[in-house]
Amino acid sequence: MIDLHLIGIGTGNPNHLTRAAIKAMNAADLILLPRKGDAKSDLIDLRRTICADVLTGSTRVVEFDLPIRDARAPYLEAVEDWHDAIAAAWATRIATHLPDGGRLALLVWGDPSLYDSTLRIADRLRANGIALRVHVEPGITSLQVLTAAHAIPLNTLGAPVLITTGRRLRAGGWPAGADTVAVMLDGGGAFEALVPEGIDIWWGAYLGMPHQALLAGPLDRIGPQIMRTRAALRERHGWIMDIYVLRRRSTTKAT
Amino acid sequence: MIDLHLIGIGTGNPNHLTRAAIKAMNAADLILLPRKGDAKSDLIDLRRTICADVLTGSTRVVEFDLPIRDARAPYLEAVEDWHDAIAAAWATRIATHLPDGGRLALLVWGDPSLYDSTLRIADRLRANGIALRVHVEPGITSLQVLTAAHAIPLNTLGAPVLITTGRRLRAGGWPAGADTVAVMLDGGGAFEALVPEGIDIWWGAYLGMPHQALLAGPLDRIGPQIMRTRAALRERHGWIMDIYVLRRRSTTKAT
Repeated sequence: MIDLHLIGIGTGNPNHLTRAAIKAMNAADLILLPRKGDAKSDLIDLRRTICADVLTGSTRVVEFDLPIRDARAPYLEAVEDWHDAIAAAWATRIATHLPDGGRLALLVWGDPSLYDSTLRIADRLRANGIALRVHVEPGITSLQVLTAAHAIPLNTLGAPVLITTGRRLRAGGWPAGADTVAVMLDGGGAFEALVPEGIDIWWGAYLGMPHQALLAGPLDRIGPQIMRTRAALRERHGWIMDIYVLRRRSTTKAT
Repeated sequence: MIDLHLIGIGTGNPNHLTRAAIKAMNAADLILLPRKGDAKSDLIDLRRTICADVLTGSTRVVEFDLPIRDARAPYLEAVEDWHDAIAAAWATRIATHLPDGGRLALLVWGDPSLYDSTLRIADRLRANGIALRVHVEPGITSLQVLTAAHAIPLNTLGAPVLITTGRRLRAGGWPAGADTVAVMLDGGGAFEALVPEGIDIWWGAYLGMPHQALLAGPLDRIGPQIMRTRAALRERHGWIMDIYVLRRRSTTKAT
C-alpha cells in the first residue's frame, strides 16, 4: 500500500508553506521531484531549496525527468497522453524506491485542487492496479498571492467569481455568470481578445518569488504595458508564469 | 501611520497557518480579536488558541465585541451599516492602543480575498482619514480544505469554476458559465432549489476543525442526508458553517 501525500507548497515563497505541509514532508519516506528541463530550472531549484529548508529527518528525495507534453497534438489529447506518461514515471520510481509500500510525497505548486493534474494522475496509478491512499495538504495558490500582493478582495460584496483559463477567455470572450474573472494558465495575453473599455485588471508574474512583478489598472491603458513587461521578463528569465483578475467596472460597486 | 496586516489563518486547523502568517502575527504590536457572541464562541476560542500557540514575543492581544448585523434589514444595506460599525470599533481600539501608530494585525478566517470584508472595512478607515498601509498574508480557505478532505480537484481538466453564494444559487438556479460551482455563505441547503438529477455534491462543515463533517455523492441521494446532518450538527454545536462543490455529471469528463 502506498500512502500518496499531495502537498500544496505555494508558489515559490517558502514562507507560504503551512505547518501541515512541513509535517507531511517530514513524515514522508520518499519525495519525488520532477525536473522540467532547462527553461524552468528555477522551479526545480525552488523545490530543492524548500526540501533543504524544511526536511529534518530521513526522508529521501529523488528527482526524475518529467515527460514532455506534445505541443503539436490537440490540447486535451496531448494532456491525456502526457498524464499517462507521468503516471508511468511515478510507477517506475515507486517500484524502485518503495517496493514494500510506504509514504510517497509530491510537492505541488499552489494547491492540488486548482488547475493541477496530480490528483488525476494519481487516479491513473490506481486504475493501473497500484494500491493507493491519497491524502491532500492544501497550499496557497498563485491567485491568493496575487490578490494579497494587490491587497484586493477576489469577489465584490456577495458577488460570484469565475475562475477560468486563458485558452477559454481567448476563445469565448467575457464569460457568462460573473463580473469578476480570474484567469490562469494563460500562454500570453488572452485578455487582448476582450473589448478593454470598462474592465480593470490586476496582473502578477512569478507570484511569491523574489522577482515577482505586479501591474494593475484599466485594461485599455495597462493591457499593452503588461504585454511589453511580460515579453521583457520572459526574455530575461527564460520562462514566465503569470495570472490575472479582471473586473467589469460598470457593475462593480464601490464599497 | 498604521500598518494594518490582514492575516489569513485558515479555517480552524492551526497547522494550516503559513510560516508567513506566524511571522506577521509575531511582528505585530497589537492583534484585535472580535468576539461574536455566545453562539460561535468556538471561533473566538480558536483564535485565542492560535495566538497562544504561535505568539512568542510582546504582541498585545485585545478582544472587542463585534457589532451585530441587522438581520431584519435588506441584506446589502444591512452589510453596509454593519461594516461602518466594525470600522468604528476598530478606530476606537486604534486610538486607545496605538495612538502613535504601529503594526495592527487582524486574523481573518480563510483568506482575506474570498468572501471576507476585512479589506472593505479597511477602506472605510482610510476614507475616515486614518493613515493606513494595508498588507495581506494569504491563508488556506475552507474551499481548499473541502477539496483536500475529499481529495478532489476543484476544476475538471481545463474547465472553469464558478464560486458563488447560497443566496445567489437559491435565487438564480444553476449559474451560467461553469459545470463546477463552489457555494459559500449558504444559510442552509440552497442546493434544494436545483433539480438534483445529474449533479454530484461534495459537502463539508466545520472544515479544518476537530468536528469536521464530510458527505459526498449524487445530489438527489445525498442532498436530503446533508440537510438532516446539518440540522443535527447545528443543534449539537449551536452553530454551523458549511460549504460545498456541485458538479454537473453529464459534462464532467472522467479522466
